[in-house]
Amino acid sequence: MGSDRGPGAVVAGLVLSAAQLPDAKFLLHGDSAIVAPLLARHPELGSRVTLRHAPRVVTMQDKPSQVMRHGEGTSMWSCIDAVKNGEAAVAVSCGNTGALMAVSMIRLRKLPGVNRPAIACLWPSRNPGGFNVMLDVGADIKAEAADLLQYAAMGASYARNGLKLDRPRVGLLNVGTEEHKGRAELKDANDQLALAAEAGGYEYIGFVEGGDLPSDRVDVIVTDGFTGNIALKTAEGTAKLISDFMREAFNAGILSKFAALLALNSLKRLQRRMDPRRVNGGIFLGLNGTVIKSHGSADETGVAAAIALAYQLSSAGFLARLAARVASTVRAGQDAVVDSGADRAEAKSSE
Amino acid sequence: MGSDRGPGAVVAGLVLSAAQLPDAKFLLHGDSAIVAPLLARHPELGSRVTLRHAPRVVTMQDKPSQVMRHGEGTSMWSCIDAVKNGEAAVAVSCGNTGALMAVSMIRLRKLPGVNRPAIACLWPSRNPGGFNVMLDVGADIKAEAADLLQYAAMGASYARNGLKLDRPRVGLLNVGTEEHKGRAELKDANDQLALAAEAGGYEYIGFVEGGDLPSDRVDVIVTDGFTGNIALKTAEGTAKLISDFMREAFNAGILSKFAALLALNSLKRLQRRMDPRRVNGGIFLGLNGTVIKSHGSADETGVAAAIALAYQLSSAGFLARLAARVASTVRAGQDAVVDSGADRAEAKSSE
Repeated sequence: MGSDRGPGAVVAGLVLSAAQLPDAKFLLHGDSAIVAPLLARHPELGSRVTLRHAPRVVTMQDKPSQVMRHGEGTSMWSCIDAVKNGEAAVAVSCGNTGALMAVSMIRLRKLPGVNRPAIACLWPSRNPGGFNVMLDVGADIKAEAADLLQYAAMGASYARNGLKLDRPRVGLLNVGTEEHKGRAELKDANDQLALAAEAGGYEYIGFVEGGDLPSDRVDVIVTDGFTGNIALKTAEGTAKLISDFMREAFNAGILSKFAALLALNSLKRLQRRMDPRRVNGGIFLGLNGTVIKSHGSADETGVAAAIALAYQLSSAGFLARLAARVASTVRAGQDAVVDSGADRAEAKSSE
Repeated sequence: MGSDRGPGAVVAGLVLSAAQLPDAKFLLHGDSAIVAPLLARHPELGSRVTLRHAPRVVTMQDKPSQVMRHGEGTSMWSCIDAVKNGEAAVAVSCGNTGALMAVSMIRLRKLPGVNRPAIACLWPSRNPGGFNVMLDVGADIKAEAADLLQYAAMGASYARNGLKLDRPRVGLLNVGTEEHKGRAELKDANDQLALAAEAGGYEYIGFVEGGDLPSDRVDVIVTDGFTGNIALKTAEGTAKLISDFMREAFNAGILSKFAALLALNSLKRLQRRMDPRRVNGGIFLGLNGTVIKSHGSADETGVAAAIALAYQLSSAGFLARLAARVASTVRAGQDAVVDSGADRAEAKSSE
């Protein structure tokens, strides 16, 4: 109800998904006066979609703190509660990101052992699968070393189950790759991520830089939510600038226009590779339930992509795997901290 | 001597610059056994270039702390000392960035009132001039509110003298544009930048996001060196990824190749707009001297662009203007802090 394109785009996405995923069933949350007529136009959805009436809507302008306190009766709240009650395996929403995180936090609560949940996104890359994972891209504005370790465990689990990578390579975002670089919490995190790699089921490759985000030497990039959010929006802004410049270049003169026409297939192929709709779906990690945040402006293709991701993760038993992996990684990280503390004490006493 | 392409590219850049800037004179620092023969091939440089022999070289692998302590006799040290001694108006180097900053700090010292010097870069944008200014992109890994205020004053002064903007619009990089967003030091900085705008000679537009970096609603973007460095490298990485994908797209099949041939002019125009050589020259701000850091891999065009910037800034009397502006802005910022402290105390007592 609260997306930029309204419930029409969501129902159109459902139609695509229903055809692609023959054994999926859907709970749709919204104002039945508006949504029921939209559903009625698609008799092929039949009994596969159950409409849950929710009289209220969270808008893009609503403050997360307000929605957290007074959000009952909204379609967003109803959707998250379906996961909480075990009726749904995954929640998908195109609504207000901050509000969705707030409602998810209060209704689903954090996974045992998780201090700060994170939002992970897929990042177009040179890897064979076409994407890397980056987190946190904006759930929280800061992260201590222990949080970054949890992000590594969660991001690696997501890459295994979402991108089907056996042993994802994890890197920690920094301003240089040398070990002495960066803030104090990054040096601590660097040690902990290395020591917990076995338990986390990932290969730790150390620090990576902004230029490595789309590279094929890393699969999962770990950073705090402030830096991650700036990097994500900077990359989107850069891609938009280049695509505008490219359009202007191809519109400058008859010859260019003719060339663009000839190059149409190539340009389309390029567009497809960079298409944000194909990577639609930030995912909230670290809660007792899986929540996928689709772009607010997602069209039917974008909505269907988010649903496909939801389906894949629930089929893989993602949540249980993630929870187990976080528990063992955090334990390994704590052991590492205790060990290196002991090492330091020993080193000191032998001085 | 320490650039990726060696002294040949620098001499070739000098040849271009000497033709473009008929009243400029040059001090060239390096091993005369290597550099003198290169100069001898260009008699047209004649008396305009003076060679200063420096037997040692700072390499890209040298640690800044080592160079700071033991860098005497290197061409980098000699170059900075020429500015320190008043023989040169501006220093230009293609060498090791960290070492250049370290040597600049120790030889030139910080401007009165400046706590942390910053590196500013030009950012391709939709503005009429084609560029925005961003700082800090990596001189320091953190910045307090007072540092961000100094960056605003320095960045605005650079935009006035380097980009010829009368009253640059300054924005503060954050994860959202609402006033309540972001870290504590950003909220403080937001207040201080607004209150010191008059003294700093800029218009303060508040928080901006990563997507605004190339936009035409801002001229100077202020951030800490950690975030700025990640954003810069993320943007470079994204541009590189898109250009690689584009090349692949245009190489896929005969028709595409033919189209690319027809579109050659358009593609060249696009490339020119995004060409990093045109924006060559990060600048160190906040020292008793102007230092321009050219890309390590700069070719003759890049070197000439950095020299052209150096020439423009020195003709504009940039350093004296910058120093005056920093002094008055810092004073205004301090007044603002004192005032708002008093306001708060008043508000409290009247509660």
